[in-house]
Amino acid sequence: MLRHLLIAWVFASSLPLRAQRPEPADLVITRAHVVTMNAAKDVIEDGAVVIRGERIVAVGPAAVAARYTARKTIDARGALVLPGMINTHTHAPMTVFRGLGDDVPDRLRRFIFPLEKNLMNREFVHWGGLHGVVEMIEGGVTTFVNSYYFEEEFAAVVKQAGMRAVLGQTVINFPAPDAAEPYGGLALAEKFARAWRGDPLITPAISPHAPYTVDVAHLKKIAALSAELDVPVLMHLAEMTEEMTLLRKDHNMTPVEFLDSVGLLNRRLVAAHCIFVTDSDIALLKARDAGVAHNMVANIKSAKGVAPALRMFDDGLRVGLGTDGPMSGNTLDLIGQLGYVAKVHKLDRKDRNVMPAIKVVEMATLGGARAIHREADLGSLEPGKLADVIIVDHESTAMVPLFDVYSALVYAASPRDVRTTIIHGRVVMEDRKLLTLDTAAVRARMRDITRRINAALAAGLK
Amino acid sequence: MLRHLLIAWVFASSLPLRAQRPEPADLVITRAHVVTMNAAKDVIEDGAVVIRGERIVAVGPAAVAARYTARKTIDARGALVLPGMINTHTHAPMTVFRGLGDDVPDRLRRFIFPLEKNLMNREFVHWGGLHGVVEMIEGGVTTFVNSYYFEEEFAAVVKQAGMRAVLGQTVINFPAPDAAEPYGGLALAEKFARAWRGDPLITPAISPHAPYTVDVAHLKKIAALSAELDVPVLMHLAEMTEEMTLLRKDHNMTPVEFLDSVGLLNRRLVAAHCIFVTDSDIALLKARDAGVAHNMVANIKSAKGVAPALRMFDDGLRVGLGTDGPMSGNTLDLIGQLGYVAKVHKLDRKDRNVMPAIKVVEMATLGGARAIHREADLGSLEPGKLADVIIVDHESTAMVPLFDVYSALVYAASPRDVRTTIIHGRVVMEDRKLLTLDTAAVRARMRDITRRINAALAAGLK
Repeated sequence: MLRHLLIAWVFASSLPLRAQRPEPADLVITRAHVVTMNAAKDVIEDGAVVIRGERIVAVGPAAVAARYTARKTIDARGALVLPGMINTHTHAPMTVFRGLGDDVPDRLRRFIFPLEKNLMNREFVHWGGLHGVVEMIEGGVTTFVNSYYFEEEFAAVVKQAGMRAVLGQTVINFPAPDAAEPYGGLALAEKFARAWRGDPLITPAISPHAPYTVDVAHLKKIAALSAELDVPVLMHLAEMTEEMTLLRKDHNMTPVEFLDSVGLLNRRLVAAHCIFVTDSDIALLKARDAGVAHNMVANIKSAKGVAPALRMFDDGLRVGLGTDGPMSGNTLDLIGQLGYVAKVHKLDRKDRNVMPAIKVVEMATLGGARAIHREADLGSLEPGKLADVIIVDHESTAMVPLFDVYSALVYAASPRDVRTTIIHGRVVMEDRKLLTLDTAAVRARMRDITRRINAALAAGLK
Repeated sequence: MLRHLLIAWVFASSLPLRAQRPEPADLVITRAHVVTMNAAKDVIEDGAVVIRGERIVAVGPAAVAARYTARKTIDARGALVLPGMINTHTHAPMTVFRGLGDDVPDRLRRFIFPLEKNLMNREFVHWGGLHGVVEMIEGGVTTFVNSYYFEEEFAAVVKQAGMRAVLGQTVINFPAPDAAEPYGGLALAEKFARAWRGDPLITPAISPHAPYTVDVAHLKKIAALSAELDVPVLMHLAEMTEEMTLLRKDHNMTPVEFLDSVGLLNRRLVAAHCIFVTDSDIALLKARDAGVAHNMVANIKSAKGVAPALRMFDDGLRVGLGTDGPMSGNTLDLIGQLGYVAKVHKLDRKDRNVMPAIKVVEMATLGGARAIHREADLGSLEPGKLADVIIVDHESTAMVPLFDVYSALVYAASPRDVRTTIIHGRVVMEDRKLLTLDTAAVRARMRDITRRINAALAAGLK
């Protein structure tokens, strides 16, 4: 059946039906075409979302709004109102290098590592990271999962921007931009985790780069530290053919089995990519309750292959979507990923009926929340959840007509259609204007950094 | 090497170096980051494009502008200036059905044909077609190739919008929205072709639907008519597995061989899709000098497969990009196709180095011009060519930094970044405002049509 005929609506369960006096609220979104992504996948054509403090207190038809007196009202006419999207894997500060090294062989060792060795520093992380944060807020991402260097520097600016993030300090077996010694990131990670644990927006994490760039002893230390501090571990997994070969040769294991052997395969892990996973790997990822970040655009741009994300999702694994870093996938919003996820899985399965648009939107929202074990608080518009909400214009020409909200989002929307972004109850962008950041200042610093990178490239990288 | 270090510039060959008095011009675009797509692939960082009447008279560095006195100047600071993109295959009036029948099996016979039979009419073609024209102009398409019904109605509105198009009247073996009898479209096509031949913007064409929906006798008639009137033939080819099976069974030929046997495989043909072509089919398409429309997004959304467009392009065939209709690919701009073309061919070939961004931009511009045998007039910014020019903002967050213009266009741009569109020397959109169309009126009619389609769907299709 055509989904648009099945318009459903819900009254927020928390609404006291006999309320006489309006209750106070901080923000009411009215005239919203609400795409709740709740269990029933309710879509409310003329609805309202009510926010008090950092939480959603009501979601329902237009009449719901009348039961509240709000300090601020946003008219969402002509727009879809959705849970904020969750980018489960990126390296946001690498925006400074975006567009370098596309379409060339051995990019990691010829471009990424030399650029980072020569040029990456605290300043670039600060401003390049903020530039990425701007792009994500503009593109409707409300939570992101990041692995990079100088994460304590980045944490401060992300928090200032009002964005929610899981930030993983990188640990790697060679000197890094923020650590002169191999594995120097581990001490930084511990310090960072202890300093930021319990923050309402920032979740500190440890990010061992990959099974082929961190040795067993350090992986075990990281497993112990993650358990002790109860912080996530973010890691590239089953992504590279050389990784598969190496682990088979050295340990006679798949990367998933290897992570299990060092104590990292557990509910605190968010594993990025998982392209080359076997049936038993998938079963093991599920048994250990690990999260998976599916990065379709980056994975096909690098010709690595199509991760069995559809199979994993259908098997009940915690699968969200990710962009990977801007040197890999170029853009950091999830709207740009949706169409690829829908279409490339159809191609891969040779079946146009699989990976329907509604499932892709679920992966981008609730799926991402599940991947980071935050589905109790994030990923859908429901009373009691944290108020991470985006308002997406459906009046751009390509979105008209609107027979099916999921089709329109997946097959026609642009990240430029996001109008307003609300995170933790705070309006961080309204009508495309960022309220928590001086975007002109960020842009000016990016221009300066770009000039310096061009000069360094002209002089030659070491 | 990094392409951005290889900035080149050209003086327009037509510029008289000893000119003292400024020459008259109609439009000068200044402070342009010009992506010429000429044979040398010159990119001019601070350049100018000069237009007189419907033609480009000069392309060069900023100083070129001073040699002309123009009636109008457009400051293109912060933007790329490119040849307009050419959409080599679509069914634009089907915007009225966009988003219906996504992700379902047997869409052609369960949705498309019944919707058309029950609902499609002259009015829907007029307004749905105009809505598609708006989307294309907004998305930087300056020429499109269309196959549908009521093409003489559509021709009038396309011309009024100032857009360039090859419009093919559909011929099919069953009663159609514009013809009560099977093959009734053939008489309409002849009348349409005779009426519109020689128009500067509209090229009339005949569009036999596909080898499996038009019989041999009619295909031969169409071949003769196309030759007599010298008008293009637009046709779906080697797109469906059932098509392959049927032609093998009935004629023991591939679809390409079959078209050759009925006299249609020649320089007037624009063949859409060509997914299932053999090596000898490719050689035959090349020998006959036919054009090919590669529709990546539609082809993978329908899980049909990846056409060997890279192979065909590298073999010197005339390959352009197309969106297919909005029930197939959903959107009608080419910017939304670019990333798919680059990335899915890399995946298909298991090689990240193939189909680099520069080649994809060439397919969208000069490749499209070659597919319709118009490369003498269209597809690049060069003196003497027709002035089909687009101005694309490169200041949106995802396009910063701009190390490589082709990477930025293919991997980061959105159709919403197109700022200004010029067709045949006429500014049809400036700063996102359409100048040749009343977009509010088009939108109001689309709303009304959508309401009526919803009512018809609720009542049930025959």
